[in-house]
Amino acid sequence: MLLHLSTWPEVEAYLQQSRGIILPIGSTEQHGPIGLIGTDAICAEAIARGVGEATQGMVGPTINVGMALHHTAFPGTISLRPSTLIQVIRDYLTCLAKAGFSKFYFINGHGGNIATLKAAFSETYAHLEDLQISNAEQVQCQLANWFMCSSVYKLAQELYGDEEGSHATPSEVAITQYVYPQAIKQASLSPKVPSGHRIYSATDFRNHYPDGRMGSNPGLAKPEHGKQFYDLAVKELSNGYLEFLNPE
Amino acid sequence: MLLHLSTWPEVEAYLQQSRGIILPIGSTEQHGPIGLIGTDAICAEAIARGVGEATQGMVGPTINVGMALHHTAFPGTISLRPSTLIQVIRDYLTCLAKAGFSKFYFINGHGGNIATLKAAFSETYAHLEDLQISNAEQVQCQLANWFMCSSVYKLAQELYGDEEGSHATPSEVAITQYVYPQAIKQASLSPKVPSGHRIYSATDFRNHYPDGRMGSNPGLAKPEHGKQFYDLAVKELSNGYLEFLNPE
Amino acid sequence: MLLHLSTWPEVEAYLQQSRGIILPIGSTEQHGPIGLIGTDAICAEAIARGVGEATQGMVGPTINVGMALHHTAFPGTISLRPSTLIQVIRDYLTCLAKAGFSKFYFINGHGGNIATLKAAFSETYAHLEDLQISNAEQVQCQLANWFMCSSVYKLAQELYGDEEGSHATPSEVAITQYVYPQAIKQASLSPKVPSGHRIYSATDFRNHYPDGRMGSNPGLAKPEHGKQFYDLAVKELSNGYLEFLNPE
Amino acid sequence: MLLHLSTWPEVEAYLQQSRGIILPIGSTEQHGPIGLIGTDAICAEAIARGVGEATQGMVGPTINVGMALHHTAFPGTISLRPSTLIQVIRDYLTCLAKAGFSKFYFINGHGGNIATLKAAFSETYAHLEDLQISNAEQVQCQLANWFMCSSVYKLAQELYGDEEGSHATPSEVAITQYVYPQAIKQASLSPKVPSGHRIYSATDFRNHYPDGRMGSNPGLAKPEHGKQFYDLAVKELSNGYLEFLNPE
Amino acid sequence: MLLHLSTWPEVEAYLQQSRGIILPIGSTEQHGPIGLIGTDAICAEAIARGVGEATQGMVGPTINVGMALHHTAFPGTISLRPSTLIQVIRDYLTCLAKAGFSKFYFINGHGGNIATLKAAFSETYAHLEDLQISNAEQVQCQLANWFMCSSVYKLAQELYGDEEGSHATPSEVAITQYVYPQAIKQASLSPKVPSGHRIYSATDFRNHYPDGRMGSNPGLAKPEHGKQFYDLAVKELSNGYLEFLNPE
Amino acid sequence: MLLHLSTWPEVEAYLQQSRGIILPIGSTEQHGPIGLIGTDAICAEAIARGVGEATQGMVGPTINVGMALHHTAFPGTISLRPSTLIQVIRDYLTCLAKAGFSKFYFINGHGGNIATLKAAFSETYAHLEDLQISNAEQVQCQLANWFMCSSVYKLAQELYGDEEGSHATPSEVAITQYVYPQAIKQASLSPKVPSGHRIYSATDFRNHYPDGRMGSNPGLAKPEHGKQFYDLAVKELSNGYLEFLNPE
Repeated sequence: MLLHLSTWPEVEAYLQQSRGIILPIGSTEQHGPIGLIGTDAICAEAIARGVGEATQGMVGPTINVGMALHHTAFPGTISLRPSTLIQVIRDYLTCLAKAGFSKFYFINGHGGNIATLKAAFSETYAHLEDLQISNAEQVQCQLANWFMCSSVYKLAQELYGDEEGSHATPSEVAITQYVYPQAIKQASLSPKVPSGHRIYSATDFRNHYPDGRMGSNPGLAKPEHGKQFYDLAVKELSNGYLEFLNPE
Repeated sequence: MLLHLSTWPEVEAYLQQSRGIILPIGSTEQHGPIGLIGTDAICAEAIARGVGEATQGMVGPTINVGMALHHTAFPGTISLRPSTLIQVIRDYLTCLAKAGFSKFYFINGHGGNIATLKAAFSETYAHLEDLQISNAEQVQCQLANWFMCSSVYKLAQELYGDEEGSHATPSEVAITQYVYPQAIKQASLSPKVPSGHRIYSATDFRNHYPDGRMGSNPGLAKPEHGKQFYDLAVKELSNGYLEFLNPE
Repeated sequence: MLLHLSTWPEVEAYLQQSRGIILPIGSTEQHGPIGLIGTDAICAEAIARGVGEATQGMVGPTINVGMALHHTAFPGTISLRPSTLIQVIRDYLTCLAKAGFSKFYFINGHGGNIATLKAAFSETYAHLEDLQISNAEQVQCQLANWFMCSSVYKLAQELYGDEEGSHATPSEVAITQYVYPQAIKQASLSPKVPSGHRIYSATDFRNHYPDGRMGSNPGLAKPEHGKQFYDLAVKELSNGYLEFLNPE
Repeated sequence: MLLHLSTWPEVEAYLQQSRGIILPIGSTEQHGPIGLIGTDAICAEAIARGVGEATQGMVGPTINVGMALHHTAFPGTISLRPSTLIQVIRDYLTCLAKAGFSKFYFINGHGGNIATLKAAFSETYAHLEDLQISNAEQVQCQLANWFMCSSVYKLAQELYGDEEGSHATPSEVAITQYVYPQAIKQASLSPKVPSGHRIYSATDFRNHYPDGRMGSNPGLAKPEHGKQFYDLAVKELSNGYLEFLNPE
Repeated sequence: MLLHLSTWPEVEAYLQQSRGIILPIGSTEQHGPIGLIGTDAICAEAIARGVGEATQGMVGPTINVGMALHHTAFPGTISLRPSTLIQVIRDYLTCLAKAGFSKFYFINGHGGNIATLKAAFSETYAHLEDLQISNAEQVQCQLANWFMCSSVYKLAQELYGDEEGSHATPSEVAITQYVYPQAIKQASLSPKVPSGHRIYSATDFRNHYPDGRMGSNPGLAKPEHGKQFYDLAVKELSNGYLEFLNPE
Repeated sequence: MLLHLSTWPEVEAYLQQSRGIILPIGSTEQHGPIGLIGTDAICAEAIARGVGEATQGMVGPTINVGMALHHTAFPGTISLRPSTLIQVIRDYLTCLAKAGFSKFYFINGHGGNIATLKAAFSETYAHLEDLQISNAEQVQCQLANWFMCSSVYKLAQELYGDEEGSHATPSEVAITQYVYPQAIKQASLSPKVPSGHRIYSATDFRNHYPDGRMGSNPGLAKPEHGKQFYDLAVKELSNGYLEFLNPE
């Protein structure tokens, strides 16, 4: 059930049966020479919708732009500052919690969002208690990073080994190929790709990762891999969502 | 050209020919008994992509959640506070302006966004000048509300007369029916629908507009109307975008 | 009744009969070669006081500085950022609403304030509901731009036609001449004055409007015109205020 | 020279001779049973204009609303939060410093503003250095509290002794009577007036100072005293301003 | 009783007998050629602990970094902006007030903190009332600057006369020598040390006070003086704290 | 070398040889029935000073209060909101980076700080690039959590097995016993201690962890264990700091 394709009376009815909502969050950032700028949002949205179908869960609007300040030296990247993203999350959850939602399951497609999201959850719990919203104590956020699913990780190792890398990875590129076969890109990729340098400023990032890849070979990606990753992630996160709603 | 389906080298190449980008912005808010919660985002996104195709313009990620505080007494609505939305816009435009974009064309689907967007543009111009970004003086934002296109307005009058209303209108519902025929909703709509009360707090809004409609009869909407509205809006806003890029 | 010339027991007594307050807001910004920097505040204050007298309404302190970032390339201009002005309005209204005021009628002298004021009203309604102030639901803000009164517009067309322009207009200059005859300025005005360029950054504004006027010929202004404009605006806005207090 | 009655070319000319500006700041707050709510703004504005005349200094728009949170349990009080007032001052000074002003002389009518103003000055100096404005190093703010002038203090002791008190004082009321003789108020004042309790929350303040006075007997005020206080303050602060502009 | 060396059940027990807490606040800033960068925090912490012992008062964690923007042109200085420090104080006091503390006694070692702390207290009182915390009305903050104790001032005059100065003073250096005898520094100090220039921007400060001292001769400091100052400050502020807890 | 026991000329000299600084950060929060409220700050500070001695690194002032909102239902806890802590870190690093520091090594004693610190680093990198500080590109932050050192983890497993738990752990309590033997606490600890519940709001936390422990048995802690943990952490983090300064 997609929130944006529902009416408010349908949401009201949904809330009679469930307090949960799935919120996809991605990023709009460079993903190397052949990865799409929307990769993280595309993956998170697709998987979240799959999870929603599998679990009858409500899926909220995709947060397309996240925390990607370190990628901003590449054109096309858009990032919120962490302090902005915290306010955005606070606003989203305050609206939804007032309406009766209390279980927020974030399906996240971007490692760079993790820290700020966790900070935002803390800020929001305290804010809701300060507002004395009736269900403030029940509000729970859980962060589910599809790329950290054990089944996904295992398959990526099998398919790509070390060439999976850590940004603009073949696994995420494969999912975008599966979702948008019309947008599969080609480019010659230099076989030597840097890795292991930590992330600091945007300028420093581009100096160390000149084509935007971090240790990855996205040229290995195939749409049919994408379907496999998608299926694994949907299955694992659907279980995760159901356990979140109904612990043990 | 869709930013999220592009790579950063493609964006770099695009910037050699154009400094413009089209940014769809909608809202996630109640649209009465049969209007979709995502109506404003759906319309803005569809039309923006149409404009992008017609003009070879780059289309950025859709801002799905806008300023809809007055709708928050209905479940399913999500709103940013104006002060948050100003920071969001500032962050988007700062990233894009640093990369070389300078012409920002916002295709907007929600009247409630207008004031905050204009405030955000002012805040951003000053911020970019303070940052001493090289192209700060060239940065220009334009707000294009598809529902205020004269061709759209004329057709809505012809088709619906006074029953167009001002929120959850048949014209916008028709576009969502055209875009998402699988999500056409049915419900019996009371023929008497309030109108004319100004917008204040969320509670006051729901007291005066108990089913969420403002003077509208969305039951008149048809997908084929939606196509007509879509075509008109794309045409008129495509011209608008090209004039914005190349005044007279 | 002027708030600043009242005592708190007088305010307490006033609140027994009325929940309304008139708040003048202007700007401190360049108004071309002969327009006063305080033009917008002077006009708003004078008209607001006239309305207060005509309606027995309380008139609050004039907000002298508004949102005029686009004029800041001219010396003497002072502007708040929109995000600051939103906080200012929120603070004003929170204090006044806690005291029992609930009908806020802003008499505005500056087009550049409109967007930010509307954003601020939305932010404030939600804030007051979050604070759970007893009268939060009753709080209503209305924006009354004197220069958009139909009677004013009609007279300006009669007197000045196209030379009214859109900034540093003869109509607003005339009111300042009426209010401050000792401060009537003279300067030779070039007959060619640019118009039609949209407003973006401060630098861009000054590049396009080098003497600060936007299509106007303030040299046509006369103090006796000012009295006419003043009388029309007071009359029309007095009616507006009374209707706001007592709808239908 | 009053900024609001000047044109921008006049400001430009002024800046050729002086970098100084006088900024009156008051408050909008209860001043006991017969003191005007605008007392602090009225006094600051009148004295600032007197100083401007005596010194040929430019006088900016009066900041009518300051930091008066502790008075907000009395109706009619309007206060900014300190964090808001800091942003307001930052915005004012940033605009003026960019235009070339560098000597900011605040004539203040309210003790409650002092701390926040000083904090705001510190915040602003650092902000201007961060902006790399050319004259950032030269920017200087000075806070001149008229009620702390030694000549004023001496006269208040002579005229009122202990009955001067510390809020809603006869000296400030006298100035408002001199400036606005039409707004002299009468009320029976209880001879016992509390004093000595420190200032904490608004509720606590009203509990301890039920009619708003702090140890004062404003019934002693006379318009002719007001003229004396006014003359003394203008003289002493004119000297202060000139010394500030040209340190020995 | 030191908060950081207590357990939460001990705090719970303490709150049965007292609502007071002592909060030391210093600064991390240059103190001239031989003064320690931590001088203000060291003095405030040592004295606060002495007061805690003398009065059985709870002593909170030392706020090591305060408002020292004007010292930031010297390496080693760390400062919060006033707007940040206000939020920090608000957060501290909100947590402690919710737990039941209501009497906050700040022992302060740095003149530059005074204005911002007072602003923060005002902001916090209003915030706590807005939160409707049960003890909001009882919350009281008092600022106790050890260096403004009359006994301290008298001794400094006796020992150092005019050479006490106003920053990097021998009295504060003496206390640090008493507390940290292992960190007594030596350097040749120029006998001529500037004084009397007001504090503006960081660059301006360093221009006028090139070695960081303001009219002081810290070479006169001795550890045994430090013990005297410490004893006097502890005694005077212990009385101050007890009076604060139990007014007359 | 401790910053607070240094003079600014010593810092200036230090910067000739090193751009690194070690910043201890802890928390002020409940640590169960026998754990000290200052546990996280005590451990971080002690270890940071050990690392400073071992590496000749400069050690900055301890950040005593971090992000502990989830512990605020226990008295004695003080927490910053994440949005406040981000500003604090931004202010610290901006001051230090302007002075020439560029390698910031945070020795952290509290898991709850991790997310907000990482968010703050991102915010700060971008802020410094916006300020155009000369060394902005070189600025690097590294987060070193002593409790995640592999040597520490191994010893904790050996000594305590599952009774290490995840909050109020015997390992951290042991370090505080080693550092403050005078503050070793005793209390009867229920053998059954909950674990495994995720962290949400403060109220929820206390409901699930009624005495504050998360799966731990701090009764196993001994000061001599504390020395072992301290030695291991200092050794491992000293290596970490040196590698951070001089990669490979």
